[in-house]
Amino acid sequence: MYVYADNAATTQVSQRALEAMLPCFREFYGNASSLHTPGQKAAELLQQAREDVAAAIHADHKEIYFTSGGSEADNQAILTGAQIGARKGKKHIISTAFEHHAVLHTLDRLKKQGYDITLLDVHENGVVTAEDVAAAIREDTALVTVMFVNNEIGTVQPIREIGAVCREKGVLFHTDAVQAVGHIPVDVQDMNIDMLSLSGHKFHAPKGVGAMYVRKGIPVSILIEGGQQERGKRGGTENIPGIVGMAAALNEALETQEADMTHLSAMRDRLIEGLSKIPHSRLNGDREKRVPGTVNFCFEGIEGESLLLLLDDKGIAASSGSACTSGSLDPSHVLLALGLPHEVAHGSLRLSLSADVTAEQIDHIIASVTEVVEYLRNMSPVWDELERGVLPHQI
Amino acid sequence: MYVYADNAATTQVSQRALEAMLPCFREFYGNASSLHTPGQKAAELLQQAREDVAAAIHADHKEIYFTSGGSEADNQAILTGAQIGARKGKKHIISTAFEHHAVLHTLDRLKKQGYDITLLDVHENGVVTAEDVAAAIREDTALVTVMFVNNEIGTVQPIREIGAVCREKGVLFHTDAVQAVGHIPVDVQDMNIDMLSLSGHKFHAPKGVGAMYVRKGIPVSILIEGGQQERGKRGGTENIPGIVGMAAALNEALETQEADMTHLSAMRDRLIEGLSKIPHSRLNGDREKRVPGTVNFCFEGIEGESLLLLLDDKGIAASSGSACTSGSLDPSHVLLALGLPHEVAHGSLRLSLSADVTAEQIDHIIASVTEVVEYLRNMSPVWDELERGVLPHQI
Repeated sequence: MYVYADNAATTQVSQRALEAMLPCFREFYGNASSLHTPGQKAAELLQQAREDVAAAIHADHKEIYFTSGGSEADNQAILTGAQIGARKGKKHIISTAFEHHAVLHTLDRLKKQGYDITLLDVHENGVVTAEDVAAAIREDTALVTVMFVNNEIGTVQPIREIGAVCREKGVLFHTDAVQAVGHIPVDVQDMNIDMLSLSGHKFHAPKGVGAMYVRKGIPVSILIEGGQQERGKRGGTENIPGIVGMAAALNEALETQEADMTHLSAMRDRLIEGLSKIPHSRLNGDREKRVPGTVNFCFEGIEGESLLLLLDDKGIAASSGSACTSGSLDPSHVLLALGLPHEVAHGSLRLSLSADVTAEQIDHIIASVTEVVEYLRNMSPVWDELERGVLPHQI
Repeated sequence: MYVYADNAATTQVSQRALEAMLPCFREFYGNASSLHTPGQKAAELLQQAREDVAAAIHADHKEIYFTSGGSEADNQAILTGAQIGARKGKKHIISTAFEHHAVLHTLDRLKKQGYDITLLDVHENGVVTAEDVAAAIREDTALVTVMFVNNEIGTVQPIREIGAVCREKGVLFHTDAVQAVGHIPVDVQDMNIDMLSLSGHKFHAPKGVGAMYVRKGIPVSILIEGGQQERGKRGGTENIPGIVGMAAALNEALETQEADMTHLSAMRDRLIEGLSKIPHSRLNGDREKRVPGTVNFCFEGIEGESLLLLLDDKGIAASSGSACTSGSLDPSHVLLALGLPHEVAHGSLRLSLSADVTAEQIDHIIASVTEVVEYLRNMSPVWDELERGVLPHQI
């Protein structure tokens, strides 16, 4: 049995998205900026996709800027907020300690440029609150950027409430919604969101395409200079196949979202229940405030990479956290932000499911993880010391 | 008969590129940063593509950074050169007046940040010389950026000679080779190129993918912050299908390049000969120093947009210049840089051929353009005044 349980890293392109894309490679291959018929056909496809993506998050099509993915959208949105602030003499930005590196590294850069960055502590349940944000807002706060769903542990942040606080205090609010859009309802109007980033390949669209939403009236800063594409705010010939594929995948995700959420929540709960039976295991992040498809566990005395490789041998594709930092030997900054000790954070396992996952697959994951954890612990001198009481258990 | 003669704007994805991409959407869809088997398969595809793209321009695979396209590569390469210069107190950058807007607008931004920008005049034949560059280099020159092939008129610049001048004077040299790679031989070693930008969709790869070459030892600046992808220099999950498709298209282009160049040159010359018979017409750019597939003509008394729309009716997809600025009513900055008067520059027609173009198609273009130009001139009060000698002919 094979289970791809790393959908937070990337997803299989859906058949529907692929079918939408295919004609764009060899039939409707014009440049959307060209005046001739093939160009205008491309422009029509682009516009339809823009309207679809806008509708999916309750935005206007003029508020959507297509990008090469979530990271680019994060970079551009934060740059936009920072530059608007600077023009008003406001150079304070609030974010959280467990953002994606596309956000954290952009903030690092701004810090070097003289911005003052506040990274909110994350509560042990993997959530920041609107009160935390409110308490951090100052007179000179230009921007608040808080992720919608954490990419490693799957916790959902109180975006509507944070947005309301920002709106009330007149501070721009951006959310990295890369792990949310397509998976759970996202409504930029109802949720008081000024700017949002999304990425196609997290919801069964192809890699290499994403979008930035920026509320009307907010002057967008340019990250990639060039031609007049995307209303002059993002140079580069539009990636029509990718954009069309993304819109198709998003339409599909929304049509099945309610049913998928119900099914995935049940599968996730079955998974949590099964993995919780492993002694000295810990579910990272709030039990309830999480996306339907993602769980993250720590197993004491286990080194994450060994666990992944043995699971891979059993036909289970999982991850220890973000794929973006998988080459790193450091423990996850997300788990550290939750207050986990280094040695525990090293033994994390993220399982992120797709909507077609079956109960049999869940049971296979549970049995395999249980077996592998036991196997690794039996070989581990650290585990031996924990069991003999030489070292104290931390979970 | 239908002729797509706008290949400098974008190209049809080749069958071979598409076939290379297809398995990456639903079979090999892993994240190349993931440790599991699907991730490692993606990483292998990525590495093979990197080696292929590197080999195509005589670079090392460690010198290739995949991007979302040529514009992003231009932005990042110029940022890299500018920041290296700034660290040495050198803030002078040399470029030309007829670069792509991805270069010109990036330079505009740097100018606002205190850089001193010299834009070299272009000779009437659409070429800048190594002597022009040498004369402009100063003690504080950080970077020279000159495009390999002009995107509107197709003239080839003396890149090897310009590179040699830069190398001799210790100045970094970047070339926007978006219209060159795949079409004519490009050798970064032989041509003394330090940094280069290329774009897949100009050589029958898909849209949304490109690459930046940066010679080993040059510290790359980050444009898109994020994960550790592209050796930490470009955040964002790698666009495996796009990258694999680009490598396949480039391999194909190189295999057929010599034959394609011979055929295209013959077709281009047939086209130039035919269009030159239209009275008061002018080939823009040097007759010899040009890529095999692109010509650009001005027809006096003609408004470019009308010409394009009537050609479109006849099944010919062409452009007046860059697709990236097609929404603009201003005449082409490239043609103005060549010294053409505004009213002449307004009447330009770019025809950019693909290697499968036939003599019959060329003859169809010639006949159609001839007919449409005559038709438009017959309706034009300006042409009437030119013919009656009220206004002087400028061509």
